[in-house]
Amino acid sequence: MQFFKVKTVEETFTLIDDKITRIQDTEERPLEEALHYILAVPVTAKENVPGFDRSTVDGYAVKAKDTYGSSESMPGFLTVAGEVRMGEAADISVNSGEAVYVPTGGMIPPGSDSVIMIEHCEDLDGLLNTYKQVAPGENIIRAGEDIREGERVLSEGTVLRPQELGALASLGITHVTVYRKLRVGYLSSGDEIVPYQTQTLLTGQIRDINHLTILGLAKEWDIDVVYGGIVKDDYQEFQSKAKELYDQVDCLILSGGSSVGAKDYTTEVIQSLGSPGVFVHGISIKPGKPTILALAEGKPVIGLPGHPASAMIIFKLFGEKILRKLKGEEIEKRPDRIFARITKNIASAPGRSDYIRVRLVEKEGEWWAEPIIGKSGLITTLVKSDGIVEIISEKEGISQGESVPVIATR
Amino acid sequence: MQFFKVKTVEETFTLIDDKITRIQDTEERPLEEALHYILAVPVTAKENVPGFDRSTVDGYAVKAKDTYGSSESMPGFLTVAGEVRMGEAADISVNSGEAVYVPTGGMIPPGSDSVIMIEHCEDLDGLLNTYKQVAPGENIIRAGEDIREGERVLSEGTVLRPQELGALASLGITHVTVYRKLRVGYLSSGDEIVPYQTQTLLTGQIRDINHLTILGLAKEWDIDVVYGGIVKDDYQEFQSKAKELYDQVDCLILSGGSSVGAKDYTTEVIQSLGSPGVFVHGISIKPGKPTILALAEGKPVIGLPGHPASAMIIFKLFGEKILRKLKGEEIEKRPDRIFARITKNIASAPGRSDYIRVRLVEKEGEWWAEPIIGKSGLITTLVKSDGIVEIISEKEGISQGESVPVIATR
Repeated sequence: MQFFKVKTVEETFTLIDDKITRIQDTEERPLEEALHYILAVPVTAKENVPGFDRSTVDGYAVKAKDTYGSSESMPGFLTVAGEVRMGEAADISVNSGEAVYVPTGGMIPPGSDSVIMIEHCEDLDGLLNTYKQVAPGENIIRAGEDIREGERVLSEGTVLRPQELGALASLGITHVTVYRKLRVGYLSSGDEIVPYQTQTLLTGQIRDINHLTILGLAKEWDIDVVYGGIVKDDYQEFQSKAKELYDQVDCLILSGGSSVGAKDYTTEVIQSLGSPGVFVHGISIKPGKPTILALAEGKPVIGLPGHPASAMIIFKLFGEKILRKLKGEEIEKRPDRIFARITKNIASAPGRSDYIRVRLVEKEGEWWAEPIIGKSGLITTLVKSDGIVEIISEKEGISQGESVPVIATR
Repeated sequence: MQFFKVKTVEETFTLIDDKITRIQDTEERPLEEALHYILAVPVTAKENVPGFDRSTVDGYAVKAKDTYGSSESMPGFLTVAGEVRMGEAADISVNSGEAVYVPTGGMIPPGSDSVIMIEHCEDLDGLLNTYKQVAPGENIIRAGEDIREGERVLSEGTVLRPQELGALASLGITHVTVYRKLRVGYLSSGDEIVPYQTQTLLTGQIRDINHLTILGLAKEWDIDVVYGGIVKDDYQEFQSKAKELYDQVDCLILSGGSSVGAKDYTTEVIQSLGSPGVFVHGISIKPGKPTILALAEGKPVIGLPGHPASAMIIFKLFGEKILRKLKGEEIEKRPDRIFARITKNIASAPGRSDYIRVRLVEKEGEWWAEPIIGKSGLITTLVKSDGIVEIISEKEGISQGESVPVIATR
């Protein structure tokens, strides 16, 4: 067996950045089913949005100069020459001294350059009293003001949020070319691990908790999970199951067996899957030291630590980074990265990154992070937490009141 | 038609809090399909987790006092009496002067009170050299230390995140009773509105953009959307389509037609659906003033403003609050509420709440919010934004550097 030097968290992130490249498979999806997918082909506008000058209010289209000087005490007077109907072209022109009614979203009639809101005028049997002056362009959105024909609206790599879908719909685009959804495989190993559905445990047996936490996190990242079941500590069985699952997925996750114990076949199994193999074997992190990261013929393989709470934190930290890189998404912009002030001093060994579970409390317009006490193996410490604070490896701890980055797990 | 006084944002939130109550329908779901559902029945532990004293490391179970005084320069010596296998009961006892090998997660054998890590000792043909002393309890998780039998593990109303699913799995729970998923109906109205799939627009026509933004947001909140199509500005047609959709859903969303224009049937249609009817008709907010909120026989009805960007912001603000209340979820704890410092002074009319689209930039461990310029009707201002800053109605603006709450839209 090869020997590996334990890596720092920072080294691990750099290695992930260097080694993981996005999948290239794309597919065509209708907009209704494209939420959170990543655009594989940029989108250029084939028309203006809006397609015509529109009113942003209910009011009267006028020549702005006809309203100059109007006020509550000295109203101006205009003749109402007609109205524009929604969904129809404005077939009437506005001449000097005239006003034409336009509803919100209605087309601006030719001859007018602004709209006076109905709240600021009064239609007295065809005579419009104006109580306010308007400036040219006021209450109008111009054709192409939102999106201009020929403009690059969205670039390749854009994550399609609701607003991007709205912008695409405004252009009449019905389908987009996106990178396809990722599929990860999850396989648990260990003589002591039994399906979580097992009702009565024999002494020494442990339920497969990671199955559920990994599934939940992957779902939150819009990734499908293929469950490979549980294998015993037997190299042949482990290797053949791992290979079978690896062949079906974009990334393989192995749970358990990554400690330096006698029955540890995980490294061997991972190395058997392809080159270049393991690039991280042990991370200077608490919790989660016995983590393995590998790349087998372009597919990432993650060997998680066995403790459920450690496994979840490691998967949230490194798994998410790996999978978002594989998707072609930037992780730094995620809403679950926030900042908070720590409520008490926390010591940490230099050279090791510590991940502290915290409760988040809002105080006077700031988040405060309150550390949760409990051994790192306990799943309940995660249940009680709203986030995880990172103490980077260069630091010997953090002082009360210090602002720290938090990965929200709310 | 009744007349309504415009409400402030704060009054609107209070009204929502007072009027909207959670749905009562529950269902039984397997854990694999319960992510983000809300627990309707509390969960009590029927057993201890872990079920037995476990080692948290690979090492040797010992009596702590047998290691006292051990150090690198003055190792202690113990006899290796055997080993504990994973997934099996420890069938060997540890006597004074003895050590028994235990893998991570393995059962602690009787007689021992601590585990010395393999890194801190050396097995020389059955003679164990110990290079460090351990304290009683060291490297052991006790039976019930994570979850104690009889303990209330999760209370009613808990949102099931990955870690809650993990905690439930650790107890062998396979199904949970949760409040069922919400279903909202979306109906668009207006003579000018055409399906977003329409390729060539006639002058004056507008594509139904809100269809996509509302669908996207609802999906992000784990809510199903029933699309009711587009109705013309005709009271009979509008009313019958709205009623038909209302009967199928938990909350009805109407888009367009909420300005005080001549063709505004929205209020009448909403009032026809049931009591007590409209409780907000106009909010002192920019953008989104012509918003209608109603309750018809216990079901919320939301009349959105027609501008796509305004509609999206209003739905994110009030729609999310209404729907999470309807689900029985607290909105205040959401990860999309963060704090940032504003990069420039922004004026605001007192008595009106302004919602400013911003880009978020990280600078020295803090988020900074940089306002995006553009008319409120433009969907592209939302595409360019990472969040929305609120200037509450009491304030006359915010000053550069001031910390402000941001609703992240990343």
